[in-house]
Amino acid sequence: MSRPSNRQPDELRSINITRGYTRYAEGSVLIEFGNTRILCNATIENRVPPFLRNSKRGWITAEYGLLPRSTSERTMREASRGKQTGRTLEIQRLIGRSLRTAVNMKMLGERTITVDCDVIQADGGTRTAAITGGYVAVVDAVNRMLKDEMITEDPMLCAIASVSVGIYKGIVITDLDYAEDSQADTDMNIVMDNSGRFIEIQGTAEKAPFSKEQVDTMLSQAGTACQKLLEYQRQALEQPHNT
Amino acid sequence: MSRPSNRQPDELRSINITRGYTRYAEGSVLIEFGNTRILCNATIENRVPPFLRNSKRGWITAEYGLLPRSTSERTMREASRGKQTGRTLEIQRLIGRSLRTAVNMKMLGERTITVDCDVIQADGGTRTAAITGGYVAVVDAVNRMLKDEMITEDPMLCAIASVSVGIYKGIVITDLDYAEDSQADTDMNIVMDNSGRFIEIQGTAEKAPFSKEQVDTMLSQAGTACQKLLEYQRQALEQPHNT
Amino acid sequence: MSRPSNRQPDELRSINITRGYTRYAEGSVLIEFGNTRILCNATIENRVPPFLRNSKRGWITAEYGLLPRSTSERTMREASRGKQTGRTLEIQRLIGRSLRTAVNMKMLGERTITVDCDVIQADGGTRTAAITGGYVAVVDAVNRMLKDEMITEDPMLCAIASVSVGIYKGIVITDLDYAEDSQADTDMNIVMDNSGRFIEIQGTAEKAPFSKEQVDTMLSQAGTACQKLLEYQRQALEQPHNT
Amino acid sequence: MSRPSNRQPDELRSINITRGYTRYAEGSVLIEFGNTRILCNATIENRVPPFLRNSKRGWITAEYGLLPRSTSERTMREASRGKQTGRTLEIQRLIGRSLRTAVNMKMLGERTITVDCDVIQADGGTRTAAITGGYVAVVDAVNRMLKDEMITEDPMLCAIASVSVGIYKGIVITDLDYAEDSQADTDMNIVMDNSGRFIEIQGTAEKAPFSKEQVDTMLSQAGTACQKLLEYQRQALEQPHNT
Amino acid sequence: MSRPSNRQPDELRSINITRGYTRYAEGSVLIEFGNTRILCNATIENRVPPFLRNSKRGWITAEYGLLPRSTSERTMREASRGKQTGRTLEIQRLIGRSLRTAVNMKMLGERTITVDCDVIQADGGTRTAAITGGYVAVVDAVNRMLKDEMITEDPMLCAIASVSVGIYKGIVITDLDYAEDSQADTDMNIVMDNSGRFIEIQGTAEKAPFSKEQVDTMLSQAGTACQKLLEYQRQALEQPHNT
Amino acid sequence: MSRPSNRQPDELRSINITRGYTRYAEGSVLIEFGNTRILCNATIENRVPPFLRNSKRGWITAEYGLLPRSTSERTMREASRGKQTGRTLEIQRLIGRSLRTAVNMKMLGERTITVDCDVIQADGGTRTAAITGGYVAVVDAVNRMLKDEMITEDPMLCAIASVSVGIYKGIVITDLDYAEDSQADTDMNIVMDNSGRFIEIQGTAEKAPFSKEQVDTMLSQAGTACQKLLEYQRQALEQPHNT
Repeated sequence: MSRPSNRQPDELRSINITRGYTRYAEGSVLIEFGNTRILCNATIENRVPPFLRNSKRGWITAEYGLLPRSTSERTMREASRGKQTGRTLEIQRLIGRSLRTAVNMKMLGERTITVDCDVIQADGGTRTAAITGGYVAVVDAVNRMLKDEMITEDPMLCAIASVSVGIYKGIVITDLDYAEDSQADTDMNIVMDNSGRFIEIQGTAEKAPFSKEQVDTMLSQAGTACQKLLEYQRQALEQPHNT
Repeated sequence: MSRPSNRQPDELRSINITRGYTRYAEGSVLIEFGNTRILCNATIENRVPPFLRNSKRGWITAEYGLLPRSTSERTMREASRGKQTGRTLEIQRLIGRSLRTAVNMKMLGERTITVDCDVIQADGGTRTAAITGGYVAVVDAVNRMLKDEMITEDPMLCAIASVSVGIYKGIVITDLDYAEDSQADTDMNIVMDNSGRFIEIQGTAEKAPFSKEQVDTMLSQAGTACQKLLEYQRQALEQPHNT
Repeated sequence: MSRPSNRQPDELRSINITRGYTRYAEGSVLIEFGNTRILCNATIENRVPPFLRNSKRGWITAEYGLLPRSTSERTMREASRGKQTGRTLEIQRLIGRSLRTAVNMKMLGERTITVDCDVIQADGGTRTAAITGGYVAVVDAVNRMLKDEMITEDPMLCAIASVSVGIYKGIVITDLDYAEDSQADTDMNIVMDNSGRFIEIQGTAEKAPFSKEQVDTMLSQAGTACQKLLEYQRQALEQPHNT
Repeated sequence: MSRPSNRQPDELRSINITRGYTRYAEGSVLIEFGNTRILCNATIENRVPPFLRNSKRGWITAEYGLLPRSTSERTMREASRGKQTGRTLEIQRLIGRSLRTAVNMKMLGERTITVDCDVIQADGGTRTAAITGGYVAVVDAVNRMLKDEMITEDPMLCAIASVSVGIYKGIVITDLDYAEDSQADTDMNIVMDNSGRFIEIQGTAEKAPFSKEQVDTMLSQAGTACQKLLEYQRQALEQPHNT
Repeated sequence: MSRPSNRQPDELRSINITRGYTRYAEGSVLIEFGNTRILCNATIENRVPPFLRNSKRGWITAEYGLLPRSTSERTMREASRGKQTGRTLEIQRLIGRSLRTAVNMKMLGERTITVDCDVIQADGGTRTAAITGGYVAVVDAVNRMLKDEMITEDPMLCAIASVSVGIYKGIVITDLDYAEDSQADTDMNIVMDNSGRFIEIQGTAEKAPFSKEQVDTMLSQAGTACQKLLEYQRQALEQPHNT
Repeated sequence: MSRPSNRQPDELRSINITRGYTRYAEGSVLIEFGNTRILCNATIENRVPPFLRNSKRGWITAEYGLLPRSTSERTMREASRGKQTGRTLEIQRLIGRSLRTAVNMKMLGERTITVDCDVIQADGGTRTAAITGGYVAVVDAVNRMLKDEMITEDPMLCAIASVSVGIYKGIVITDLDYAEDSQADTDMNIVMDNSGRFIEIQGTAEKAPFSKEQVDTMLSQAGTACQKLLEYQRQALEQPHNT
């Protein structure tokens, strides 16, 4: 069997993480998983949503959007359509929930970090790339807060990364691009931390139900890929950077 | 350890399935998982969404809503708020996707089955109850189509059911009610078919990441519960019913 | 002349009032006028709309909705449509206005009672059934407030009930079902109190203008029917009920 | 007793009807009931709403709006608010329904007459003035259709007019201005035809329930007032006018 | 060359300014540029938008709307459409920005003047007529504030007026009506103050780019026309008026 | 006088034009005016808006959006807000109108070119950069159409470019960055073609009215700058590019 992308079943695409991609955001990361390119900008604001007022806790939330021509056919602009699609809302809920797992909300104080994930080019796996890049943007924003003495202790609890796996012609493959995703029988998005535990598992039988054995292989292959992604994040964060 | 509900870890709540609950829908099922009560009404319409026109394929879609006072505190009516929340959209996408797995879309012809899942009373597990009850409503609607000779062959591919599992004080528990769900560390919703394979796995680390061993236990316990739910569905469908 | 329903001209449909239909609402009433079934849930909240802040007065408001398949053909869900229809807004204004007549707003204090009227099954006369059932839900909510010592005096000013009358083939008929309503020349909805006075009269010449004599007969027949409905309400409220 | 306006109980305000108020509308009428001033513009379009396509029937509909500063305090512009209020929708439904009673829809052919009622200045009774003026605008639009040979027979079935009556300090008064309306115990809007029959009766107990005797007096006094308004309409329509 | 309107190239249409056109607004002006008729109502409110709170500065804003049948073909009502068009938003931003130039915001105190410009009849040049009439309404509102001692010093900084110019068959013409505007190669809207300086220049090559010489002629001709409009405003403001 | 940016009064910022910035759009241009960075993607679609159906004419339209953190403080995402601001609508109307001037609509056939201008980083002058970059994206899209033989003749009528000029401390300066723009007395955006004629002039007295002499200097300085921008466009378009 060969994948449409000619990669090995467990091979990630070329991964690039560029910090400081724009000037204003407290954390600004361009992440590339092959042709998928997403700008993840983290913003710090000194306020929290109404349900957290006077709770002495912070919040992390995410917003996600496809630029209209990030896709092969133009996708209608949600701003002119007047509402976000269910897909967008579902993805931004997933990103925000995952990133909150990595940070101690009490140590943030009553502040919100908003992570805007805008897809410049979409070739499959945008939600997993957004989580992986969004984590780096959050670390940069948190470091800015430490440097500016908004907070005194590092609130990071763990590192997280995310990858998709799927079943294509009976074989489990890692990090599906769009061509692979659209032909896969099953698609699973996984978020893991740096101790190898799971934050999210979202598996869907797109064309055919899947067995427990396939779940085991998918989780195992995702685990290997997430460890590689966590290493890419570490390398990127070690680069000197003018926060 | 004892669960807040005093049930055994792998014990379902009392399950009731009432067919023909209202007069007009082609399939009308009230499903109860303990105090969770949902009305699942399936409607047959002779048209499909624009992307399927002239495709000779049918479609199944779902809509989900909480009655404002199905919840302990009143939830704002989405119709007066002017839009559906991300949670609602995410749930109705899950229900529709799951139900489509059970039916051969070509054999439906260019028809849509819309399954309205309206929550009369919410006590945890509404999405899993909606899928489990929605399946029965779809079967009744399909039988109506066969009886009315809109279609000549049975398009059902498999039976499906859904249950939640979670980790509460380190123990995996089945079919969480609201009190349990709000204290669980991890929450996982699972949809399975009658051959024991998976349609959807959606697991979230609400408070703490989870291990592969915990995944295995959760999937196993969910499998047992889904088989019981499939049996309840079969019994309900065996009752004489004036479709 | 015989009515489509074969009832006598002044005969109500079978009326059922079930209190405590759901667990969470302070007043929860299922009312049935024949095949019309509406769930009326009253919620108490310790706040008032902006225009009443610091007025020491309370407020009663109503919201109304058709479940999509309460009707013979599926009615589009207002939550996904993004707005409520004019018909819905008109009906919920009528219900709220009528219920406010029955309660002393000063004695409520700065609290709001919201009455959600969700139509499970629609067979004509939903607005009149909603008012009649909504009144019982308000009484249960008010009794809960008295029991919980939120208020010390009973704020109920009168009892109210509502019925439709119409002109069908020249004859005045009471409590029209959908088949009758769609063929009637004139349709009138009336809300009355327990002293036989009028709260609302809304009469519309659907097909033909109507005379003063016809108004007199309609008002008289509505008066008789409302007295019967008030008696059904009294009987329901006399049942022991675990408020 | 004297009314706040010092008028006799059954005295209308000064009524003015100006045809041809603007240039483009097929019927353009400024109607004044005292300080209430409404521009009623009737537009003819060669299409009908979807539910009437291929029915060979026409349609009449109305839209209603308050200019923001038609009122004593500025009313928020519905266009910038993004939706029409329940009050607006209720009023425009009433105007459209009333005007449809006056015209034979089959004789219109598949055409729509839209009557825009924009309130320049509001001093009570805007819905009754809009119906009374809207009727004249419809007649002018219909005459234009006859003159242009779009239709060959006059489709008018009757003339209609509308007035409010109410109970103020126990006395029935006619054509309430804003000061009177806000102090009245009961408010009733009535639409009648030129044979003295009723098209609409909408009576509301604003502050106190009302008796059958009061209904009789209100209907009688409204009947007298509507006959006067019908005479004003006739006189206005007799003026030469460059349709 | 002769213009479609047969006016001289630099000839304004007949200009009429009627103050006190409605009763409630603090400034209420009907302005007519030929067949273009706009009601400009200025409202004073004791609050400012959020970004000015506690700034000790006031604000002037404008809203603009076409009555549906102000135009030759009916324009859809923005209130029922659910949003304002880009054209409307652009025009109301221009009107508000221009009027703010004429008033000292600090001297207003924390108050807002809202100028509602509702077009009764549209025959080209509605934005320029709205600015010219809106200025008069603002002066009347400011005089009301002085008379009522809400402020003690006159905050008016200058007088402003606005006119359109354009290029029709190679000739620069002033104050285009709709027929002229739709055939012009270039359309330019200009706002000037009473010292002959520019507040706004908005020129668009509708059909053909334009040269610097044409710009010079357009600005010169607009200057002459604005001086005439400023004189009409002065004459109108000299009339006794019951502010 | 020295400008905040230390540039000469007539000095443009560093200009960069990168073609083929993303993979899918028929024209994809990243344009940089100093720190202002905008992605301009042109999409070809084989349909036109309703008002052009069966007209044998094409259409060019533009959409504009700020990424939330393109700005110094986070700007709310219009997609989650549910509508586009007046500023956005005004800018996209200007971009579309300008670009249409450069292309012969009949020669396009019934096709639409949509130019999405998404601001990655905003430092003043976004609308002028969007027009300048959008022109290059349109040329690439048109060349693709010629290469693919969708059209046989080049429909380009002229080249266009745009720049801002303004008055800062009495001096006319070119291509204002954000710091300069926020302190300028007057701001003018100009669109010109390659024969030195004007397509759009939009000048606003932000803080003080401006004189005819200042208009002359602004137009002259803008003319020089636009010629330089047109040269940058030509150089970019001469690069080999895999359309």
